[in-house]
Amino acid sequence: MDNPLVGIVMGSDSDFEIMKGATEILDEFKINYEVTVTSAHRTPVKTHEYSKTASNRGIEVIIAGAGWAAHLAGVIASETTLPIIGVPIDSSSLNGLDALLSTVQMPSGIPVATMSIGKGGAKNAGIFAAQILSLKYPKIKERLVKYREDMVKAVEDKNSKLNLKLKNR
Amino acid sequence: MDNPLVGIVMGSDSDFEIMKGATEILDEFKINYEVTVTSAHRTPVKTHEYSKTASNRGIEVIIAGAGWAAHLAGVIASETTLPIIGVPIDSSSLNGLDALLSTVQMPSGIPVATMSIGKGGAKNAGIFAAQILSLKYPKIKERLVKYREDMVKAVEDKNSKLNLKLKNR
Amino acid sequence: MDNPLVGIVMGSDSDFEIMKGATEILDEFKINYEVTVTSAHRTPVKTHEYSKTASNRGIEVIIAGAGWAAHLAGVIASETTLPIIGVPIDSSSLNGLDALLSTVQMPSGIPVATMSIGKGGAKNAGIFAAQILSLKYPKIKERLVKYREDMVKAVEDKNSKLNLKLKNR
Amino acid sequence: MDNPLVGIVMGSDSDFEIMKGATEILDEFKINYEVTVTSAHRTPVKTHEYSKTASNRGIEVIIAGAGWAAHLAGVIASETTLPIIGVPIDSSSLNGLDALLSTVQMPSGIPVATMSIGKGGAKNAGIFAAQILSLKYPKIKERLVKYREDMVKAVEDKNSKLNLKLKNR
Amino acid sequence: MDNPLVGIVMGSDSDFEIMKGATEILDEFKINYEVTVTSAHRTPVKTHEYSKTASNRGIEVIIAGAGWAAHLAGVIASETTLPIIGVPIDSSSLNGLDALLSTVQMPSGIPVATMSIGKGGAKNAGIFAAQILSLKYPKIKERLVKYREDMVKAVEDKNSKLNLKLKNR
Amino acid sequence: MDNPLVGIVMGSDSDFEIMKGATEILDEFKINYEVTVTSAHRTPVKTHEYSKTASNRGIEVIIAGAGWAAHLAGVIASETTLPIIGVPIDSSSLNGLDALLSTVQMPSGIPVATMSIGKGGAKNAGIFAAQILSLKYPKIKERLVKYREDMVKAVEDKNSKLNLKLKNR
Amino acid sequence: MDNPLVGIVMGSDSDFEIMKGATEILDEFKINYEVTVTSAHRTPVKTHEYSKTASNRGIEVIIAGAGWAAHLAGVIASETTLPIIGVPIDSSSLNGLDALLSTVQMPSGIPVATMSIGKGGAKNAGIFAAQILSLKYPKIKERLVKYREDMVKAVEDKNSKLNLKLKNR
Amino acid sequence: MDNPLVGIVMGSDSDFEIMKGATEILDEFKINYEVTVTSAHRTPVKTHEYSKTASNRGIEVIIAGAGWAAHLAGVIASETTLPIIGVPIDSSSLNGLDALLSTVQMPSGIPVATMSIGKGGAKNAGIFAAQILSLKYPKIKERLVKYREDMVKAVEDKNSKLNLKLKNR
Repeated sequence: MDNPLVGIVMGSDSDFEIMKGATEILDEFKINYEVTVTSAHRTPVKTHEYSKTASNRGIEVIIAGAGWAAHLAGVIASETTLPIIGVPIDSSSLNGLDALLSTVQMPSGIPVATMSIGKGGAKNAGIFAAQILSLKYPKIKERLVKYREDMVKAVEDKNSKLNLKLKNR
Repeated sequence: MDNPLVGIVMGSDSDFEIMKGATEILDEFKINYEVTVTSAHRTPVKTHEYSKTASNRGIEVIIAGAGWAAHLAGVIASETTLPIIGVPIDSSSLNGLDALLSTVQMPSGIPVATMSIGKGGAKNAGIFAAQILSLKYPKIKERLVKYREDMVKAVEDKNSKLNLKLKNR
Repeated sequence: MDNPLVGIVMGSDSDFEIMKGATEILDEFKINYEVTVTSAHRTPVKTHEYSKTASNRGIEVIIAGAGWAAHLAGVIASETTLPIIGVPIDSSSLNGLDALLSTVQMPSGIPVATMSIGKGGAKNAGIFAAQILSLKYPKIKERLVKYREDMVKAVEDKNSKLNLKLKNR
Repeated sequence: MDNPLVGIVMGSDSDFEIMKGATEILDEFKINYEVTVTSAHRTPVKTHEYSKTASNRGIEVIIAGAGWAAHLAGVIASETTLPIIGVPIDSSSLNGLDALLSTVQMPSGIPVATMSIGKGGAKNAGIFAAQILSLKYPKIKERLVKYREDMVKAVEDKNSKLNLKLKNR
Repeated sequence: MDNPLVGIVMGSDSDFEIMKGATEILDEFKINYEVTVTSAHRTPVKTHEYSKTASNRGIEVIIAGAGWAAHLAGVIASETTLPIIGVPIDSSSLNGLDALLSTVQMPSGIPVATMSIGKGGAKNAGIFAAQILSLKYPKIKERLVKYREDMVKAVEDKNSKLNLKLKNR
Repeated sequence: MDNPLVGIVMGSDSDFEIMKGATEILDEFKINYEVTVTSAHRTPVKTHEYSKTASNRGIEVIIAGAGWAAHLAGVIASETTLPIIGVPIDSSSLNGLDALLSTVQMPSGIPVATMSIGKGGAKNAGIFAAQILSLKYPKIKERLVKYREDMVKAVEDKNSKLNLKLKNR
Repeated sequence: MDNPLVGIVMGSDSDFEIMKGATEILDEFKINYEVTVTSAHRTPVKTHEYSKTASNRGIEVIIAGAGWAAHLAGVIASETTLPIIGVPIDSSSLNGLDALLSTVQMPSGIPVATMSIGKGGAKNAGIFAAQILSLKYPKIKERLVKYREDMVKAVEDKNSKLNLKLKNR
Repeated sequence: MDNPLVGIVMGSDSDFEIMKGATEILDEFKINYEVTVTSAHRTPVKTHEYSKTASNRGIEVIIAGAGWAAHLAGVIASETTLPIIGVPIDSSSLNGLDALLSTVQMPSGIPVATMSIGKGGAKNAGIFAAQILSLKYPKIKERLVKYREDMVKAVEDKNSKLNLKLKNR
């Protein structure tokens, strides 16, 4: 698990503000990853190279984020059998509906596992990558269970604070 | 790999017409699976039971298909750390847009890997389950590679036939 | 009527900014209520507990607000026969369309009474809860009638002020 | 409970094909109801009369179904404090999105409890009316509990049949 | 033409910011008008009164602006045979799509002449009212022709200025 | 009133199936009209000629129906000050949403009075033309009032028949 | 002009029913073309080969039609500087909105000239290819002018026939 | 190539902020162009003149940008056989969806090559114009190839910088 297990790909460095939702989760789960800026449209050759070599370099899951007519995840999925997770990014005027449909509506044969639009989706992509890897790496499963428990506590805390605030009105 | 590795869940038996897109692919990939009709809303207790026991029963991936306000995949995802694949089903008047948004727009913390709407999405869910499992089971990886090669040949055949037809006009 | 008659539930404390539209109305109608932060996805066990015990604790109506793939109201509705009022919250990039469809498009068998998106919808949820309760509690009916009369006066006032302003241009 | 407790209103007799989803449920729950064809736009005077007199005639809940720019539920809601349940009907080319938004997006002050689009929504309207009435009439509560139990059994049956069919392939 | 010929109606005084698009045009065309705040939902009685008496008071065209589930124009149209012009207002989270569909998708029998969303639509409502009145009042026709000519000159000016700016880069 | 007062224009003769909703109403109201097939895109010269000469030929209102990117009503409106009524036609795969937005979202300066999508909208266009003309021609006003009364009776009849049918179940 | 000047590409032979809208026009304009079935996702290698070699083989314009998350036109555009015309195909449940947004919303740098959805769009793609080529090949320009004139006559004919039919009622 | 080869047209000078995406690219590619403010609706005569004379003045490609019910590109396309590129502008409350559908959904016979919404679309319009012209002017082809190479380098640079930043955290 020392080599990167997860490849995070985005079409532009400006997408990193969103995609760091994924890197933060993978840091938290202590899963190594690599970050690559490559575009389905602007750098197709690099994107092909990336897709074809990922598996051999030890990558087991790829997370791809893109906005507009978001072809990146689908294009990568067409050249590897690794599971691809797509994150639609809300960067056009259409509120991410274009990126969502371009990512999720893959024709039968080449799936892309699509997350919700934006930074929450990028975070979920990191969690979903961990869920896939947890089938093989028991330590990641333990961290996922712990993560869920922390989530429950966090909601409980919020509930207590809100009720305290309401009581003290 | 003799026990079911994939759980396929749907809210109604009428959804099977769509969801058999997944069973057919898993049959083709020789991956064992179980099929369960349970609804997030009509049989919540059974759905909770299903979600909590799946991992212990040996299930590694769950595919959940539902239409309308499709909560099934999200509700299952909330009670297991197994990867959940959601298939939006086009059964209301809104062409599946309701099922798509209800499945894909999961808030951060609990991801659902969403496929395209309908039978093509169910088929892709089967393929994506195989892609996840292929990280652990090399035979599945071989079958995925073979599947891709067959797909290329099938497109080539279609191309030849169409051009023959055009030539003979 | 001393115990809470209305349960107000939301997935995150950040939703309270919207949901206080409901608490303010219930305060105005002198209807006791309780406020709970619990998520369909992050705290499913607590949400089940909440739903199953609400009726026994004397709750007669539940108002549930959530954004994104808003499953909260539907999940609660699946475990109680109390009337559930859903408030779609506009917290994703899709302007609340995702929350609206996830809340309103409930499959047949388990209804959720859906209000408009956002704070106006939360306010209406409070009023609708009062309308339900007014069938049983005549005092609430009186307050509803009074509320309507005040509403008429408020519109009349606005009309007079606008016309005065226009006259004095 | 001998007099009608529920008023079912629709803009056109052609809507009855959808709205009988509600009458069938009310028959099943042994709740008396009346059925009225009246349009917000074509027969406004009758609609006002209906709305203003409903409460005095003993009606406790009103279900209103309409398509297109569906104003019927909102217009009735403006003239009574009874709880109004709206059913958007899919009768224009826009798949019921127009009726849904016209029904659910009520401005703050006058709520309409909106159900899903079409016959399933009409059925849910009947169930939701029963849920409201069950707060006051214990027999209806018993029937609702029984209805839920039957629903669970029906899903179980479907599950068994589907699995039997799959086993016998 | 001394009495108001046009009635401008809006559901809330906060809509005046949009609806003054209409008053400014009518001022420019020297057409008398009255402004009324009345809501289809909050003040139904006043709205009925308004609709039924408008024609007798000499009003020949009514402009109604509303947001959300915008029923105002349709409700007025149901109680008078005067031509009603509807202006959808963008005041909910759905960008005015709800108001547009609630205004334009009138069922057959009771038309509402719908303008574009927002202030431009309010301005166009004023112009369209003038176009209707111009059939009867020749002076208004003259002013409309003049208005068109000024519009042509304004575009010409903008073209010249932009090209001058580009030349001087 | 012997010459045509209303011009009905459509982009293709296949649109007549929809647009006869307007001719039938005008026949009923005994208003003379002319019907012209001309396209904003395929026959621009004829469309300009039509628009510029309509007023001089005695036309007082123009009804224009078109599907897809429906420019016809807007293009005619740009070359005459007569009131233009637009009917969006549902002839593409997008259910008429394209035609609706292309017709209604006119920029400020050149209004098009938009009706609902399809044949109901065409019928309403005929009624709205009658409402405009009724300001000038008292006989048309009388017929409009009669038309409304008949509409009320028709709804009453439908109500009686439906209730009779329900009673005799 | 003996070699193919236009390449028509589609993801599946089932798309030919739509794409023959383009071949028929090119036949009419006597422009040579080649037809190729290749998919951005199922046969990425072939698609790359196609894109990179098209210009050298004498192709001057490429027309690409695809449904669902339609990446084909964008992927080809990324590997050639030839003008690419995209035709969104309505083959999913979303009425072609997914294909439209996936084709048209190309990020800046790599344009795709998008046509309307479906067979009309395919036909327009053929015409637009002819318009591009007409800048270089005067004979094609002549045929375009002739095609427009025929279109005008066809509309005139339809107008005459419809009016004849109306007169003879 | 000294005379303008490209005509850039927009409905209002306020659209220039978007449309300069096109002028900047054409400057970069050293392609002469002219800029004209003219509106399909406000200055129809000027727009007809422009369209009919463009070809004779040496213009080979026209780029037209407009918002709302964007008829400009379609109207120009109806009066010339030059290739027309449409840029939908996001200037109404509907996020440019209205302008997109009004531009792209042209009925068969008169195509408009539609770009993505907004400034990126305007930039792509400039590139697409260059791609069309490159078929005839080899120098433009060279510049396009160079532009692509620079684009690849720019993405590479962004990738290096982002990875450097990540390493130095």
